[in-house]
Amino acid sequence: MKTAKQTKTRSKKAGLPPGTLVHIGEKKAESVRITVIDYDQQNFQESQVANIEDCFPFKATPTVTWINIDGLHDTSIIEKLGKHFDLHPLILEDILHTAQRPKCEDYDNYIFVVIRMLSFGDENEVIKSEQVSLILGANFVISFQEKVGDVFEQIRDRIRNAKGRVRKMGPDYLMYALLDAVVDGYFGILEKLGENIEAMAEELVSEPTQKTLQQIHSLKRQMISLRKSVWPLRELIGGLQRSESSLIKQDTNIYLRDVYDHTIQVIDTVESFRDTVSGMLDIYLSSISNRMNAVMKVLTIIATIFIPLTFIAGIYGMNFKYMPELEWRWGYGLVLIVMMMVVVIMLIYFKRKKWL
Amino acid sequence: MKTAKQTKTRSKKAGLPPGTLVHIGEKKAESVRITVIDYDQQNFQESQVANIEDCFPFKATPTVTWINIDGLHDTSIIEKLGKHFDLHPLILEDILHTAQRPKCEDYDNYIFVVIRMLSFGDENEVIKSEQVSLILGANFVISFQEKVGDVFEQIRDRIRNAKGRVRKMGPDYLMYALLDAVVDGYFGILEKLGENIEAMAEELVSEPTQKTLQQIHSLKRQMISLRKSVWPLRELIGGLQRSESSLIKQDTNIYLRDVYDHTIQVIDTVESFRDTVSGMLDIYLSSISNRMNAVMKVLTIIATIFIPLTFIAGIYGMNFKYMPELEWRWGYGLVLIVMMMVVVIMLIYFKRKKWL
Amino acid sequence: MKTAKQTKTRSKKAGLPPGTLVHIGEKKAESVRITVIDYDQQNFQESQVANIEDCFPFKATPTVTWINIDGLHDTSIIEKLGKHFDLHPLILEDILHTAQRPKCEDYDNYIFVVIRMLSFGDENEVIKSEQVSLILGANFVISFQEKVGDVFEQIRDRIRNAKGRVRKMGPDYLMYALLDAVVDGYFGILEKLGENIEAMAEELVSEPTQKTLQQIHSLKRQMISLRKSVWPLRELIGGLQRSESSLIKQDTNIYLRDVYDHTIQVIDTVESFRDTVSGMLDIYLSSISNRMNAVMKVLTIIATIFIPLTFIAGIYGMNFKYMPELEWRWGYGLVLIVMMMVVVIMLIYFKRKKWL
Amino acid sequence: MKTAKQTKTRSKKAGLPPGTLVHIGEKKAESVRITVIDYDQQNFQESQVANIEDCFPFKATPTVTWINIDGLHDTSIIEKLGKHFDLHPLILEDILHTAQRPKCEDYDNYIFVVIRMLSFGDENEVIKSEQVSLILGANFVISFQEKVGDVFEQIRDRIRNAKGRVRKMGPDYLMYALLDAVVDGYFGILEKLGENIEAMAEELVSEPTQKTLQQIHSLKRQMISLRKSVWPLRELIGGLQRSESSLIKQDTNIYLRDVYDHTIQVIDTVESFRDTVSGMLDIYLSSISNRMNAVMKVLTIIATIFIPLTFIAGIYGMNFKYMPELEWRWGYGLVLIVMMMVVVIMLIYFKRKKWL
Amino acid sequence: MKTAKQTKTRSKKAGLPPGTLVHIGEKKAESVRITVIDYDQQNFQESQVANIEDCFPFKATPTVTWINIDGLHDTSIIEKLGKHFDLHPLILEDILHTAQRPKCEDYDNYIFVVIRMLSFGDENEVIKSEQVSLILGANFVISFQEKVGDVFEQIRDRIRNAKGRVRKMGPDYLMYALLDAVVDGYFGILEKLGENIEAMAEELVSEPTQKTLQQIHSLKRQMISLRKSVWPLRELIGGLQRSESSLIKQDTNIYLRDVYDHTIQVIDTVESFRDTVSGMLDIYLSSISNRMNAVMKVLTIIATIFIPLTFIAGIYGMNFKYMPELEWRWGYGLVLIVMMMVVVIMLIYFKRKKWL
Repeated sequence: MKTAKQTKTRSKKAGLPPGTLVHIGEKKAESVRITVIDYDQQNFQESQVANIEDCFPFKATPTVTWINIDGLHDTSIIEKLGKHFDLHPLILEDILHTAQRPKCEDYDNYIFVVIRMLSFGDENEVIKSEQVSLILGANFVISFQEKVGDVFEQIRDRIRNAKGRVRKMGPDYLMYALLDAVVDGYFGILEKLGENIEAMAEELVSEPTQKTLQQIHSLKRQMISLRKSVWPLRELIGGLQRSESSLIKQDTNIYLRDVYDHTIQVIDTVESFRDTVSGMLDIYLSSISNRMNAVMKVLTIIATIFIPLTFIAGIYGMNFKYMPELEWRWGYGLVLIVMMMVVVIMLIYFKRKKWL
Repeated sequence: MKTAKQTKTRSKKAGLPPGTLVHIGEKKAESVRITVIDYDQQNFQESQVANIEDCFPFKATPTVTWINIDGLHDTSIIEKLGKHFDLHPLILEDILHTAQRPKCEDYDNYIFVVIRMLSFGDENEVIKSEQVSLILGANFVISFQEKVGDVFEQIRDRIRNAKGRVRKMGPDYLMYALLDAVVDGYFGILEKLGENIEAMAEELVSEPTQKTLQQIHSLKRQMISLRKSVWPLRELIGGLQRSESSLIKQDTNIYLRDVYDHTIQVIDTVESFRDTVSGMLDIYLSSISNRMNAVMKVLTIIATIFIPLTFIAGIYGMNFKYMPELEWRWGYGLVLIVMMMVVVIMLIYFKRKKWL
Repeated sequence: MKTAKQTKTRSKKAGLPPGTLVHIGEKKAESVRITVIDYDQQNFQESQVANIEDCFPFKATPTVTWINIDGLHDTSIIEKLGKHFDLHPLILEDILHTAQRPKCEDYDNYIFVVIRMLSFGDENEVIKSEQVSLILGANFVISFQEKVGDVFEQIRDRIRNAKGRVRKMGPDYLMYALLDAVVDGYFGILEKLGENIEAMAEELVSEPTQKTLQQIHSLKRQMISLRKSVWPLRELIGGLQRSESSLIKQDTNIYLRDVYDHTIQVIDTVESFRDTVSGMLDIYLSSISNRMNAVMKVLTIIATIFIPLTFIAGIYGMNFKYMPELEWRWGYGLVLIVMMMVVVIMLIYFKRKKWL
Repeated sequence: MKTAKQTKTRSKKAGLPPGTLVHIGEKKAESVRITVIDYDQQNFQESQVANIEDCFPFKATPTVTWINIDGLHDTSIIEKLGKHFDLHPLILEDILHTAQRPKCEDYDNYIFVVIRMLSFGDENEVIKSEQVSLILGANFVISFQEKVGDVFEQIRDRIRNAKGRVRKMGPDYLMYALLDAVVDGYFGILEKLGENIEAMAEELVSEPTQKTLQQIHSLKRQMISLRKSVWPLRELIGGLQRSESSLIKQDTNIYLRDVYDHTIQVIDTVESFRDTVSGMLDIYLSSISNRMNAVMKVLTIIATIFIPLTFIAGIYGMNFKYMPELEWRWGYGLVLIVMMMVVVIMLIYFKRKKWL
Repeated sequence: MKTAKQTKTRSKKAGLPPGTLVHIGEKKAESVRITVIDYDQQNFQESQVANIEDCFPFKATPTVTWINIDGLHDTSIIEKLGKHFDLHPLILEDILHTAQRPKCEDYDNYIFVVIRMLSFGDENEVIKSEQVSLILGANFVISFQEKVGDVFEQIRDRIRNAKGRVRKMGPDYLMYALLDAVVDGYFGILEKLGENIEAMAEELVSEPTQKTLQQIHSLKRQMISLRKSVWPLRELIGGLQRSESSLIKQDTNIYLRDVYDHTIQVIDTVESFRDTVSGMLDIYLSSISNRMNAVMKVLTIIATIFIPLTFIAGIYGMNFKYMPELEWRWGYGLVLIVMMMVVVIMLIYFKRKKWL
């Protein structure tokens, strides 16, 4: 269970003073990769820097700067960055504790947002969750990811090629685009889940086993984990929309409303998946009952036909001296006929009861 | 499952810049049909236009203009319309992504509404859902549908023949009338569903099978899909009522309250259908148990009667040299009488237990 | 199912312009009966009028006038009344569509209230629901019922005989009295339901059948229907209390609070009935399991006793040439004793298992 | 069922004008007992009066007066009191209808509170509920109880002996003390319920019967009844705290917050009892299944061992002329050995399946 | 059940005047231990005092003072402290009644907070809960614990060694640190619970017994108890954040927001544990059904194979004089072959039904 693991790592840090920078969470990346994209409507510049200090000059320029950091285990980088950009120690702590709930915090001169980027693992059975922390400042966005690889590649393309309006707008629009990309990623997850549910539903009808039940519950758990990423997002984006921070322009607000709508759609879909899966549970349980019923019927039919027959055979197996039937010429034949009639009557009875 | 399909198409578009016009959803119509109805209290004019540009002059006239577009796959039409009527790119995107949740968005000089028009498919078993997008401007209403065929024919008749008050009132009343027609359509769906539920309830009593269970769950899913169309509608109309937009007159507000009431009635009915269907599930499960009980009783009665009899016959089938009863003249007759008595006693016992 | 029927009639009207006066619902009365009661502290006058026009003069008098109309199928009467008293077309429509949800609408110079009057049918098994529409004006109350016969007789008596304070107070108090009478009627319904539940509970313990389950669900449905009448009432009366309309005096407000309390009591009782009925479902299901258990035990006891005995008899029914026991003088007797011992051991075992 | 009875008596009164004084509820007391306690910091006086008129002088004195009335069937007393203390007729009605929901009503010069005092009946199985109505005026508290006997004795002692701060404070503190005593009484009820639940839990493990199920449901019903007394109390006390009435001093408010906390504790405990009892239901149902399983296993073991053996015996019971085994010297012994082997194999099989 | 015990002790006190100081709860400590830590940025002093009076001088100093009291049974100490620090009697009462719900009360010159510190007992199976009461004054924090031993040791270390910012900040930060330590402690509890759940889940798959069910319910109860400590905490900290008391500085508020986030995380985890445990219940119940199914299948297979065989043997065990087969040379062999064929047919049938 993922949750158990998260709390496990979480408790390692219990008792340290708040703001202590310890990376809590799996170490998912080998080395830290820092990328800087700097642009305005005319200019564009992209570079990978070796030292975090190389990013600092961009803070002063009027152009929009997007600093992306992949890999969190080197806390000194986070610390230096925090110092230069004047970030609150608790924010740095939250960036490093990668089991945060999605949230949005409004500080005076920047907005801090935590979201969760989801992906299916290689086995395609477990949803993997990666924490993405975003800081929106006056003319920069800083993003922190646990490891290389994300859903932002198309945004980078749009910036590079000046597609769409991203180059014409400010850092708030960039942050919106990042949020939008993450939420769009959820639709892919839902698609996979939907396929799994359909496959499950067919298996359920054709041949349900105890394993099916466990898969249903695994599906349920995946949806719970999805919900945990999505529900707070709704609040988060609603909060951004209502925020009175001057960092978010009126124009961008309309776009945030659009992400909000998508979030609601994701939630709706998850909820209706939940209903479907609950229905599958009912079907599973009732199909177990039905199979028990079928087993019982076979037993009952066999027993009900042969037990009386065996009894009749038993009668004429008795050794009484004076049993007139035994002496009859056609006694044996008559008994066989009687037995046949018993069988026919039974079969008619079962036919009527619709057991056959 | 419909939802799975929707998210599937949805994810195709992930990563494109917002406002990119791509038609997402099934292509349901062969060609785009554009109809314009223009009227005021005295005049009426209805025409089908070939090019979207032919509608543009109506924007300037003081009369009420209703532009209806059936078919969304030709994005250039939507784009030109959007440009001329000055619609926000996100609205155009929402019109083209036909898996929107019903919603209402208030822009400065127009109101954008998305609702879902429902109909039963030919097989009468699946509820089909079509997205209808409405734009209410100062003196026009633009409606977008996925394909030809809608529930608005009677409104067109009322406009043509100046029945009711529609010709005396503004575009806000027209939009109300469209919303009202869609909600009125839901009552027809509910009627069908109600009939299906009644049929199911009878089948449940007469002869429940595993298939019945699947039908119950299919009913449940249909109601979930209905709910997804109706619940947001409540909010939507409530939002329109409370809206401070000057586009909606005080007079029309009273009519919106009426649609609101109908929405609540639809929701109430759906909820009570849900309760009924849940009750059917209980009845189904308990009837399975009851049948198992019946099977068990037959087995038990047969076994309980014949097993002791067979034992008695077994006794006198033994080959002991010294078994006095075997020599008796009436031994065989006596044993038969004893057996008969056992049967009678058993039957009395079962009678008392009310198994017969 | 009542709900199905209501939506059926409702959809007949789909597409007509709003405010079209069509009576939707069962025609429950043969002819329309119009009664006028006019009173103030000193005077009292009661008459049955043939034409609706005869009521019109009362609009102008300062006395309190109560116009009661039984039977809704003659829409012309409603129309004339509506015109004279200046009622909004949607109100007239709501009066005629007798599947309204209880609601309260505040127009400028009158308040419109819809409630549902409940009664048990003759078979005492189904709750019948009749829509009562009330209009409270400056000095009149107009009430619309679907058919003759109501719970207001005692109010008429109080007015006739100047009992209580009704003659001293205005039309708002009269409307309160009508609401109060309807809510008081619910207590009678609850009483009946309570008796049915008690009867059911006894049947459940003594002899539960599949029919019991259906009765439980019928009870459940009745409570759902009751709830649908009562829940909105709470809102409705709360709305009246908070209303800023000058039509409701401060004095009457205290009385409305009293009705509100009664409504809450009705809701509380319905909810606790629901809990009781849910508990009955559990008991029913577990009693089915218990009976299956009992059946199984009988089978097991019989089979477990006789199968070994039959086996022993079978042994000595074999035809081996050399079976020394068969030759023994007391072989037969010994075998019978062994069999008896097997029976005793089995019975002790069952005793210990508490199966006997 | 208590609820059914209450609504029964309630409906007797349907249709009477509001404010009609009829005692509705069981008559629990033989005669009415009126007690007056009058005190301030220095003085104390306690007396039992025969006529209600003897209480009236106390209304004028500046000292705190507590008038307690046990027994409600003599409506004339309530009426006189109401007239003298200027109480609203609806309040008198509520006092006499002893099935009120706990509530608090703020009139201009007094506050009216209804609460429910609970106690276990003699059989210790059913919770009895008695309505206590309190009226808090400028310098008096009037309390109405259905019969003699209450949880207020310790408050009287504190007043008599000037213990605690009750003598130093006003009537609002006295009312707080009464409320507090009633809520404290609930803890005793919870204790009893807790013991019953523990006893039930043990019985459930050792020997569950159909009766156990009914007891579980009786427990559930008791908790529902407790809830109905406690939930509204929360609202009630919250209302008193927020009340802007000058009758409640700031000092007393802190004490009310304390009662509020206790109420929440009672609710919490009731809710966790409910969870426990629901868990007991699960255990009960699964233990029925387990026992069925055990019965089935015994049957299966016996049948599975003896049916093959009986078949073998049947083989050698056949009367074929040419059956070589029958002639063998050790045929009988061999067959017995084969049978023994079959038994051993079966037992090993069952051992592996963990059925033994 | 813990809850039962708490209410038991609670009711002992029923009827005493509010503010009476009686220690209610288990006596967990032998003697009372009082520790004083006094510090500012430069100075630090820690001492264990014998008499409570020795703490009093610290009230006047401008340094931050943390008075910690372990053991509550000596009410005189609490009383003296209360008098000197001017605490409301109800607060002292709440400190001594160790079954409080977590809460926060804002008095004029101090804030009173009750929280619950959790730990696993030695058997590692039951969550133990200890009440911690905190009083935050202008320059002091007083903490009350039921016994020696807490989760605050690391805070003491940080104060002693001037680690982190605790020495630079005021008493509000100290109180935050205490709250944070308690909430951090919950993560440890969650970790343990998570491990127990995982162990349970494995046991459930490998070998579920009736005991497993009881363990599932014990887990459920532990989570309910955890919830009862955590849910109110959320409200509590939210209350502190929104509090307008000057005792809490703006700077500390950001830290409180952090604790708030942790609380939400704990709640989320508890809720997802609940879902997991509910799923385990489903799996348990269905595995019981499955095992019953397996038992039934064995019985049915054995009975269905041997009952017909026994019947055939019975036929040729009959003693009719004229049974031609008995005389046949290969009659016996033929019968054996027929029997073998019956077995083969049966086995094929079972194979098809997938029972083997």
